[in-house]
Amino acid sequence: MTANVIDVDDPHDPRLDDFRDLNSVDRRPDLPSGRGLVIAEGVLVVQRMLASRFTPHAMLGTERRLAELSADLDGVAAPYYRASAEVMADVIGFHLNRGVLAAARRPEMLTLEEVIDGARTIAVLEGVNDHENLGSIFRNAAGLAVDAVIFGAGCADPLYRRAVRVSMGHALLVPFARAQNWPQDLNILRDNGFEIIAMTPDPRALTLAEALDVRRDHRVAFMVGAEGPGLTETVMRASDARVRIPMSRGTDSLNVATAAALAFYERARDNG
Amino acid sequence: MTANVIDVDDPHDPRLDDFRDLNSVDRRPDLPSGRGLVIAEGVLVVQRMLASRFTPHAMLGTERRLAELSADLDGVAAPYYRASAEVMADVIGFHLNRGVLAAARRPEMLTLEEVIDGARTIAVLEGVNDHENLGSIFRNAAGLAVDAVIFGAGCADPLYRRAVRVSMGHALLVPFARAQNWPQDLNILRDNGFEIIAMTPDPRALTLAEALDVRRDHRVAFMVGAEGPGLTETVMRASDARVRIPMSRGTDSLNVATAAALAFYERARDNG
Repeated sequence: MTANVIDVDDPHDPRLDDFRDLNSVDRRPDLPSGRGLVIAEGVLVVQRMLASRFTPHAMLGTERRLAELSADLDGVAAPYYRASAEVMADVIGFHLNRGVLAAARRPEMLTLEEVIDGARTIAVLEGVNDHENLGSIFRNAAGLAVDAVIFGAGCADPLYRRAVRVSMGHALLVPFARAQNWPQDLNILRDNGFEIIAMTPDPRALTLAEALDVRRDHRVAFMVGAEGPGLTETVMRASDARVRIPMSRGTDSLNVATAAALAFYERARDNG
Repeated sequence: MTANVIDVDDPHDPRLDDFRDLNSVDRRPDLPSGRGLVIAEGVLVVQRMLASRFTPHAMLGTERRLAELSADLDGVAAPYYRASAEVMADVIGFHLNRGVLAAARRPEMLTLEEVIDGARTIAVLEGVNDHENLGSIFRNAAGLAVDAVIFGAGCADPLYRRAVRVSMGHALLVPFARAQNWPQDLNILRDNGFEIIAMTPDPRALTLAEALDVRRDHRVAFMVGAEGPGLTETVMRASDARVRIPMSRGTDSLNVATAAALAFYERARDNG
């Protein structure tokens, strides 16, 4: 079986409605007019969506991108609406360099218990409300052997189009869950043997290397907060250790996704 | 002496010309209509510009930001044009949340020899042509004890407004220079005792930890290339060691600024 290709040349074709006005179709379903579709852009991210639990129900793209995806689309039933770049631009509202899109409906959220099952290292986020930072954290998690991401209070939607794009599609592959009770659900992590490490710029904290050296054989959860305010004090107090990145004096903290990457790296460096 | 405050309420005032149409004033001086001004935005970045060798010749901002900068402006002769947010928006062409701007003319470039003098760790960039990545690299360099940045071929302008902003002003503080002959100038680094480390995703390369453990007492230059193509093979061959970040299988490489941050961190981690 090959790809299910359907040629379209009318930008008003209703079968393309899930890609119409692309800047709004990913709006969260709980928001006014939000449809909550998950959108993958570009060959690499569409490939990752096809490999994820976010099964696309439709794709829209050029002939060129269809050729690049042909092996991935073998046996995929969802239609690939083949269109010119001009028709695509008319439908989505702007010119898209990446040349291909896939749309998926949101499956049921995974539970915290599901995503930590078998995990050795996880990231726990509080107040990370910037889609680009969220996307970068997923990309860094995937590259540096982090098994899951947990959202505490105040985080943005990781399935927003920009977050998925910046994550290079890893927001669709690295399992994530939302804490139902924050920060009380940290106890679920602790009951499952996780040591909870709160990242902080506080110079009195342990360094990453000091804190992780003694936890090589433990499950570890790295908590990071928004740039600027950082983790709330309540959440700090619920941690097992406060840990810092050794920084030059006189500089402000690093970007939150970079700080997370350094923690993930320190954890993974002896397994390389 | 206090700040040199001048009230302006006419958006056409010619004294504000250096802030007019802000999206183009930072265009490189060698480009058509390029004036090459260096622009700092926001209180923190203006403070860093005032502490840098990029001496501002004029500032434009609101009363509120003037109050926040008052200690920094004590004794500063350059005028602070005080205006309403509305007048500012009329001048620069859009609304600026950060509320204050400073403009500096470009001083003479530093030489490679000047910026490596006394440096222990430096970053060498090739083909990093994205302003956001450049800005992030400067921010990470400042936070993680990197003393200077050298530009090889194909890099974007670190004094472009967006790069300065993303760097949190550190593009003005971390010394940088352009290689005049690339990659031959790597020999100048080598003649000055630098070990040249080329970052690569190649799985046959040494890990960062392995490569740096034996170079604790050496001067080190980390070379990174653009995301995607990475360093050119010519430059790879001119290095002393090829070094990788231990990565999960099946993932593409990290963002170039993140990869650089991990290298800087590995270098600094035992001095924390």
